[in-house]
Amino acid sequence: MIRPAVVLNYIGKIVVIIGIAMMTSVFWSIYYQEEIIWRIVLAALITIIAGLLLSRIDKHGKSLNYREGFAVVTLGWVAASFFGTLPFLLSGYMPSFADAIFETVSGFTTTGATILTDVEALPKSLLFWRSLTQWLGGMGIMALFIAIIVGMGTRANQIFRAEIPGPVSDKISPRIRETAKILWTTYVVMSVVLFFLLYIFGMDVFDAFCHTFSTMATGGFSTKNQSVGFYSSPYIQWTIIIFMFIAGTNFSLHYFAYKKRSLKGYIQNREFKLYSGIILVAAALCAVGMSQIPAMEEKIRTSLFQVVSIITTTGYGTADYDQWSALGKSVILILMFIGGCAGSTSGNIKVGRHLIMLQRAAIEIKKMIHPKALIPVRLGGRVISIDLVVNVLQFFFIYMAIIFIGTITMGAMGLDLLSGFSAVATCLGNVGPGFGLVGPTQNFGFMPDVGKYILSLLMLLGRLEIYPVLVLLMPSYWKE
Amino acid sequence: MIRPAVVLNYIGKIVVIIGIAMMTSVFWSIYYQEEIIWRIVLAALITIIAGLLLSRIDKHGKSLNYREGFAVVTLGWVAASFFGTLPFLLSGYMPSFADAIFETVSGFTTTGATILTDVEALPKSLLFWRSLTQWLGGMGIMALFIAIIVGMGTRANQIFRAEIPGPVSDKISPRIRETAKILWTTYVVMSVVLFFLLYIFGMDVFDAFCHTFSTMATGGFSTKNQSVGFYSSPYIQWTIIIFMFIAGTNFSLHYFAYKKRSLKGYIQNREFKLYSGIILVAAALCAVGMSQIPAMEEKIRTSLFQVVSIITTTGYGTADYDQWSALGKSVILILMFIGGCAGSTSGNIKVGRHLIMLQRAAIEIKKMIHPKALIPVRLGGRVISIDLVVNVLQFFFIYMAIIFIGTITMGAMGLDLLSGFSAVATCLGNVGPGFGLVGPTQNFGFMPDVGKYILSLLMLLGRLEIYPVLVLLMPSYWKE
Repeated sequence: MIRPAVVLNYIGKIVVIIGIAMMTSVFWSIYYQEEIIWRIVLAALITIIAGLLLSRIDKHGKSLNYREGFAVVTLGWVAASFFGTLPFLLSGYMPSFADAIFETVSGFTTTGATILTDVEALPKSLLFWRSLTQWLGGMGIMALFIAIIVGMGTRANQIFRAEIPGPVSDKISPRIRETAKILWTTYVVMSVVLFFLLYIFGMDVFDAFCHTFSTMATGGFSTKNQSVGFYSSPYIQWTIIIFMFIAGTNFSLHYFAYKKRSLKGYIQNREFKLYSGIILVAAALCAVGMSQIPAMEEKIRTSLFQVVSIITTTGYGTADYDQWSALGKSVILILMFIGGCAGSTSGNIKVGRHLIMLQRAAIEIKKMIHPKALIPVRLGGRVISIDLVVNVLQFFFIYMAIIFIGTITMGAMGLDLLSGFSAVATCLGNVGPGFGLVGPTQNFGFMPDVGKYILSLLMLLGRLEIYPVLVLLMPSYWKE
Repeated sequence: MIRPAVVLNYIGKIVVIIGIAMMTSVFWSIYYQEEIIWRIVLAALITIIAGLLLSRIDKHGKSLNYREGFAVVTLGWVAASFFGTLPFLLSGYMPSFADAIFETVSGFTTTGATILTDVEALPKSLLFWRSLTQWLGGMGIMALFIAIIVGMGTRANQIFRAEIPGPVSDKISPRIRETAKILWTTYVVMSVVLFFLLYIFGMDVFDAFCHTFSTMATGGFSTKNQSVGFYSSPYIQWTIIIFMFIAGTNFSLHYFAYKKRSLKGYIQNREFKLYSGIILVAAALCAVGMSQIPAMEEKIRTSLFQVVSIITTTGYGTADYDQWSALGKSVILILMFIGGCAGSTSGNIKVGRHLIMLQRAAIEIKKMIHPKALIPVRLGGRVISIDLVVNVLQFFFIYMAIIFIGTITMGAMGLDLLSGFSAVATCLGNVGPGFGLVGPTQNFGFMPDVGKYILSLLMLLGRLEIYPVLVLLMPSYWKE
């Protein structure tokens, strides 16, 4: 049974957090003496008040039941996205609701696709909010919520699992609230380090904040029209390469490396090894075709930047890969179907799922030779149950089916095949840029409104890893 | 243990059948008084003699063991393809081995992709052989072999299953040889009917033969540069639409419909219903964007022809779909990942597999609401075991993984993304035409040799549904 009041109570609390976060943009409005300051304040106040009102509907603060958990996750993200549009709408800088919702969903889901042609024309407070949505969405709005609000009852675990990317969530702590706290702390600490590095290497404070947010979240929003390509400093580019790579790694590996003061955890992790291996091979293939850049360091840096940016689903650019060799372009296209590690801030299918499916593929072929053999699938030192294998394989099928159907909807809007297919793949995978009309130097502003809504839905589906959203569409979910 | 002599014995017998089939081309050489007649005779004789020599290596005619069955299927197809190139090579009309193997594999696998720019320049005997390879490959060289040669032992079942397309092979008869005979008889009878219809509607005897072969096999080779578009007669086009549709349907449905004198079997079959439904929806979507053709009948016929041609993996053309609206093109692209029914002559993933995966997807989502529920997957009135579900899901993953890796190899050869991606998809799916450089009015002649070999391998992988080929690549297959 779904109790609307209970669900709205929790959603209200999430909306309050979003509103408080919005308030931080006001500081930048003050600092840069922007005219829109009162509009930002208004947006934040509306959000906070609406959140408080929603959370008052159920006064008893009842615990969620099993089914309500799914509604809180999905509708919580939808609510956050709706209220997140207010600074864009009220400021007058993004009057179209379709544009504002696309940009906000792209922010929270850490996709990083934009409808803006001239990013730099936006006031700083809006740019800050845009980047902050990525940082909040990266480690998870729900996880933050669990970490700071008490009284979730036993459903916290389920909500947490629905939001944290990947097929298996490592149990860092038996208590889910502890895990959420540890993950968010790791995230914050690494963000602080990145911020200082970017500042030291020459970014101003504002840009360092914004790029820290979207790098750690593997988001990809930049404050510059040229994206990270604006910063010609190799130090800044290498720093971002490394931190995108770190953000695409399972955060529990970082935490245990810190706890045990040892890097062994990384080396023993098969997903991490495959993730690193794919990056090296892909970057080498891209570098091979890159005759336009003669200097070796720059060639490696440019290839590696783009490969890490796409596989981690960040989507920053220092180069227009749509101008690369056919080999480089095909590598980038395929990376749009990989993603980073489970338990990272990256989106997409994820290396962990690919690893499970690759192992199971080998087993399927071996079973033809030895039909009775029972060969287990392993991930992170554990044997994976057949139920999880089916769940992962089924995820892949649904993922591809959504891409196929999505491509047809893009065709219906007149997009050519490559633009349409890559737009759907890049949005569902939370990557950001695609090819052709939605290439790295282009944007999504030209899309008809209905296209922006469809792609926003795909971004949300991708970020929540499909199942929790689809479950709400089943009639039996709403029945007694 | 693999006994090479035993495997070669069976492969030799298959080669003999190929050689005898090749001899039928000689009649057309005589009829059209072609100069290359003795070269065709030579090709056929070499094939027959080589086959006889191979089959003499093991004089005892031992039965195959379990593992050897896979080798006979895969290597039998490879051998058939090698000897099948002889008419092309010896005649001097296709001097490049890469070209000849591409064309022959494309024939046997019923892909229908060609390296020829001017098909009509070929002598009739070669055109006949080209079409005949499709007809032989359509229902299966092995099935034919099983149907006409005694003494396969218990391995016939396994070989049969490896070759007959689809996730489940309906047991028409408890004896596999009976089943093979019934399928081939149904195939022959329908081919005779189609031949007479095409002849009555205006094709000459030669073209009626060739188009019957490639229609019933869902192959797609035509004797005309304009493909079926050469025949402006709506009767011919409608006849081919209907017979492509029939060839893409499970042949056991045809057999039982004949046996029981009832069409109920079709209506009760969920795969058939989904197959028909996809065709109707896809054709409607294609027709919507087709403003260049005003006449309603022609609009419907053109859309339906192309949709049926692609979903059944035939690949004939009456129109250049690469010039269609964005919507129409995206529909055609996605149809390249569907295929016809299991147990038909079509290639690709097949509607049956999609049906299993779609059902299981719904179950996966329902399991989130009722985690303990046991909901079975059904196909053809039977409950599908979880092992088969995993097998199907795993097939889909391997299929897509091959497409991803294949796209990168095409990129390495300089093909643009859409041409490369669609070339791989159309060859692995045994469809024929793709988009861009390999579009319906283009051909594969421009590809570098290594590209032709890669695509030939993909066609073979697709025709044998991947597993029997990959099993030969496992080291443990060759060990004791």
